[in-house]
Amino acid sequence: MNTTLHVNAHRLEASIAELARIGALDGGGVCRLAFGDADKRARDFVEQRMRELGLTVRIDRIGNILGTRPGRRQGPIVAAGSHVDTVATGGRYDGAAGVMAALEIIASLNDAGVETDLPVGVLSFVNEEGARFVPDMMGSLVVRGDLSVEDARRAVDRDGVTVGAAVDRLGYAGADDFSRLDLRAYLELHIEQGPMLERTGRTIGVVEAVQGLTWITYTLTGAAAHAGTTPIDMRRDAGLVAGRVIQFARTLSQEIEGQRATVGAVAFAPNIVNVVAERVRLTVDLRNPDAERLALAERRLAAFVHDAAAAEGVTVSAATDVRVPPARFDADLVARVQTAADALGHSSMRMTSGAGHDAQILSARFPAAMIFVPSHGGVSHNVTEFTSPDDLAAGANVLLQTLVGLAESGH
Amino acid sequence: MNTTLHVNAHRLEASIAELARIGALDGGGVCRLAFGDADKRARDFVEQRMRELGLTVRIDRIGNILGTRPGRRQGPIVAAGSHVDTVATGGRYDGAAGVMAALEIIASLNDAGVETDLPVGVLSFVNEEGARFVPDMMGSLVVRGDLSVEDARRAVDRDGVTVGAAVDRLGYAGADDFSRLDLRAYLELHIEQGPMLERTGRTIGVVEAVQGLTWITYTLTGAAAHAGTTPIDMRRDAGLVAGRVIQFARTLSQEIEGQRATVGAVAFAPNIVNVVAERVRLTVDLRNPDAERLALAERRLAAFVHDAAAAEGVTVSAATDVRVPPARFDADLVARVQTAADALGHSSMRMTSGAGHDAQILSARFPAAMIFVPSHGGVSHNVTEFTSPDDLAAGANVLLQTLVGLAESGH
Repeated sequence: MNTTLHVNAHRLEASIAELARIGALDGGGVCRLAFGDADKRARDFVEQRMRELGLTVRIDRIGNILGTRPGRRQGPIVAAGSHVDTVATGGRYDGAAGVMAALEIIASLNDAGVETDLPVGVLSFVNEEGARFVPDMMGSLVVRGDLSVEDARRAVDRDGVTVGAAVDRLGYAGADDFSRLDLRAYLELHIEQGPMLERTGRTIGVVEAVQGLTWITYTLTGAAAHAGTTPIDMRRDAGLVAGRVIQFARTLSQEIEGQRATVGAVAFAPNIVNVVAERVRLTVDLRNPDAERLALAERRLAAFVHDAAAAEGVTVSAATDVRVPPARFDADLVARVQTAADALGHSSMRMTSGAGHDAQILSARFPAAMIFVPSHGGVSHNVTEFTSPDDLAAGANVLLQTLVGLAESGH
Repeated sequence: MNTTLHVNAHRLEASIAELARIGALDGGGVCRLAFGDADKRARDFVEQRMRELGLTVRIDRIGNILGTRPGRRQGPIVAAGSHVDTVATGGRYDGAAGVMAALEIIASLNDAGVETDLPVGVLSFVNEEGARFVPDMMGSLVVRGDLSVEDARRAVDRDGVTVGAAVDRLGYAGADDFSRLDLRAYLELHIEQGPMLERTGRTIGVVEAVQGLTWITYTLTGAAAHAGTTPIDMRRDAGLVAGRVIQFARTLSQEIEGQRATVGAVAFAPNIVNVVAERVRLTVDLRNPDAERLALAERRLAAFVHDAAAAEGVTVSAATDVRVPPARFDADLVARVQTAADALGHSSMRMTSGAGHDAQILSARFPAAMIFVPSHGGVSHNVTEFTSPDDLAAGANVLLQTLVGLAESGH
C-alpha cells in the first residue's frame, strides 16, 4: 500500500464548493432535481472535468456518465462514483462528495504519474434520489440491467412530463449501453446521512450492508361527513384510520429488531376542518437490514391496516411503490476498505447503511462496497448538511488506497 | 292559527332550482364561496326577488340583506332567513332552503292578501360558511354587534385577499348598520345536515339548542430527519404526535357524554415519504351541547397534546380559531314551532343542532329558533345533498304559521 499517495484536500473542497454553486439555494443547500436544468449543468460540469483530466467519456442512453483512465492493460474497470442529482432542498454533499472524490483521485493519480494495471473509472449515475421521477436509483438500475432504458423513459413526474421527454429536451443521453459494462469493483464514498459516526467519534464507516427498503402507499377511503352532525357510530373516518396507522409504524419500530418504520407523507381529502376525512393517502417507509424481519414488518403492517380500516368501515387499497431487499457488500472489498482505513490511521466502525445507494443496486452484479464519512448532526436531505473537509479527505484517501490496490492487483 | 294559509310547494322547489343554477357544479351541487362572483350573483338574485315581492330592501356595510314587508304598525320585525353562500363543493339546500322559504312565505302572504300587525322580514346573511374567510357566521356576528364591520373587512383568505377588498370589488355593501336592528324574533328553516330525522322517520326537527363548538389548531414542530438513517430514539417526529392526537379525538368522543371530536384538516411538512415530519398543522373540531363538558374536552385535549408532544421532543403551539358556546333557543319560540308542527299534522322531534347557524349567533340578542327538515342520508356539504320538496314545503309551512302567529300577536 502506497500511503504516500494522497488526495489534495483543498482541491477536493474547492470542487465540492464549485459544484454547489449549480442549483444553489439560500442557506448553503442545492436543488438539482434529476433531469432538470440544474442537474444538466452539474452533469456538464462533471463531463468537462473528466475531459480535463484526460478521461475517456462515455454516456449511456439514460444519461449515466463513465470517465475511464486507461490501465496498462485492457480489463475490467475499477470504478468509483455516486450521483450529482439532489432532493428539492438538498445539501451539497449527498452524492456530490462521491463523484468529486472520484475525480480528485484521478487528478491525484495524474499528478503522481501513477499507472495502474487495470483501468480506473468514475461513474456519475442519473436520478439516484427519485425526488421527481421514481424509481430512485434509476441510473444504477439501468446499469444493473433490471430496468430497461425504455421503461425508465416512461417514468412520469407530477406534471405528466416523462423521463424520455426530459432527457430528449436536455440532450442528456448518449449512445452507450452500460448494461454491458464490465467492472472489477464499484466503490462509493458517501456521507453517512445519520448520526452514528459523529456520536461514536469515528471518521470512517466501513459499510458492510444496506438495509432493505419497502414503501407501501395506502389509500384509505371512508365517507365525508359533517363533523358537527354525524354521530360517531355512523362515521367512516379515513383520518382516524390514518392516525392509527401512523401510531402503528412506531409500534413496529419498537417491536421488531432493527426495524425503522416512518410515515412522512400524508394527504387528507377534502382536508376541511369540519368534514370527516373521506380519503387519506399515506406512505409507510419500512427498513430493516434483515430480509425476514422486513417481511415480517410488511405482514404485520398489512394485517393492522386491514383490521383498523375494517373496524371503521373504511376500504383500503395498497400499492408497493418500492421494494429493495437488504444488500450485503462484497467481503473482500469490505476487508480492503478496512485495511486502508487502518493503514491510514483513521478510526472506523463497521456499519449498515440506513439509506439506499447506487452501490447497493450494483452489488447484485459487481463486487461493491461503500465508505461513509460523518454527517454533522446526522443531518442530510437538508440545506444545512455538512461534512468537514478533513473527514472528506480522510474518506477520499481510503477510497484512493482501495481503488489503487484493486487496480494494481489486476486479477 | 290559520292553517288554510300555506306556501306554494312547486314555486318553492322552482326557486331553489333556479338559485342552484348560480355557481352550479356537476352532480347537482354548487360553489358559491362567500364574497366571490357566484355569491354576488346569488345575492343579486335574492335582492331582485325581494323587490319583485314589494319588500323594502336594506343592505348593511358588510353585505347582509334585509327585505321588509310592512305591518299595520311600526314595530320590531318578525324575521326569517338564512344564507346563500356555500362551501366549495356544497349542496343546493344548505342555507338556500331557508332564504328561499322565507321569500316563498312573503309570496304566499301577498297572494292571500294577508296583512300582519308587525312587519315581516327576510334576512340573507353573508359568509355563514366561513369556507374562504373566517370567522364563519360573519354576517350574523356583525348583526349581533360582536364583530365590527372594520374587523370583518380585515379577514384574509389564503391568497391574501381581504373581505374589505372583495366587498369593494363586488359592490356588495350598503350603507345600513344592522347592529341597530330591532327584531321581534328570528326563525331559520334549515336542512338537518345529519341523519336523525330520516333515521327516526320524522318530518320536522324542533330545534331547542345548538352544540357549542371549539376549533383548535395545533402546530407541532419536531425535526426533519432521514427515515432510513435516523435511529428511533433520536427522532422528534411531529407526524407521530399528530397520529396520537387524531386517535385521542376519537377517545374523547367515546369518553365524554355528547362529545364529538374530529380531525379533518391535517398538513404534513415537508411531506416526503422518506423524511420524518418536521412540522404538522392540524385542527381539532370539538362539539358538545353542554358547555361544561365542552370545556372538559378542551382541557383533556390540551393536556394530551402537551404530554404526547413532550414525550417525542416536539414543541406545540396552539391557537383557538373558533369558540362558540352552546346556545339554547327561546322557549316561547320553540313552543310555537312545536305547536305549528302539531297543528299541521307533521311528525316531529326535539333536537339539538350539531352544526352552527346564524340563528345561534342571533339568539344571544333576539328571541330565535330553528326548524329542521330531513337531509337524505344525513349528507350535507356535499354535491349530493338532498331534501324532498314535500319535506321542504312542510318545514316552510311550519315556518309560515310560526311567523304569522308572531306577527299577528304584535306585542
